[in-house]
Amino acid sequence: MHWIEYVGLFGAFLSAITFIPQVIKAWQSKSVADLSTNMLLIVFTSVIVWLVYGFYLSLLPVIIANSVIFILSIVLLYFKATFKK
Amino acid sequence: MHWIEYVGLFGAFLSAITFIPQVIKAWQSKSVADLSTNMLLIVFTSVIVWLVYGFYLSLLPVIIANSVIFILSIVLLYFKATFKK
Repeated sequence: MHWIEYVGLFGAFLSAITFIPQVIKAWQSKSVADLSTNMLLIVFTSVIVWLVYGFYLSLLPVIIANSVIFILSIVLLYFKATFKK
Repeated sequence: MHWIEYVGLFGAFLSAITFIPQVIKAWQSKSVADLSTNMLLIVFTSVIVWLVYGFYLSLLPVIIANSVIFILSIVLLYFKATFKK
């Protein structure tokens, strides 16, 4: 595998775990007042677009990373809808 | 241009604007207490990795999207460092 593919996989890995610390922080603090709902909706929408792109071109790192972000963005939107400020 | 390339460009566009509403919200409220610093640091790191990937493979949507996110993640990290809770 060419080194640039490892770079891509590392980027996909980092993108996949991006929201994990945010989910943990929100869960512990039960506070999401400062999180932008519009940001989360954009993330949710972009993930669906990237999944179409990834599945069509069979880009496994894109599929895996965005599947993880898909789930975490739903969790954060759920927190945003249920946690009282 | 094949339709899937438009899908990729749309995904890149959405990813690029992801943090714009968060920057606006943080600027207006002057509050970033609920934002995860670790999330922002992961975003910052992933953007650098994606820029290496994008420049090496001459993927303009990847370069543009991540350049925008690079700047916005620095802005949010600056807010995080300077805004009092």
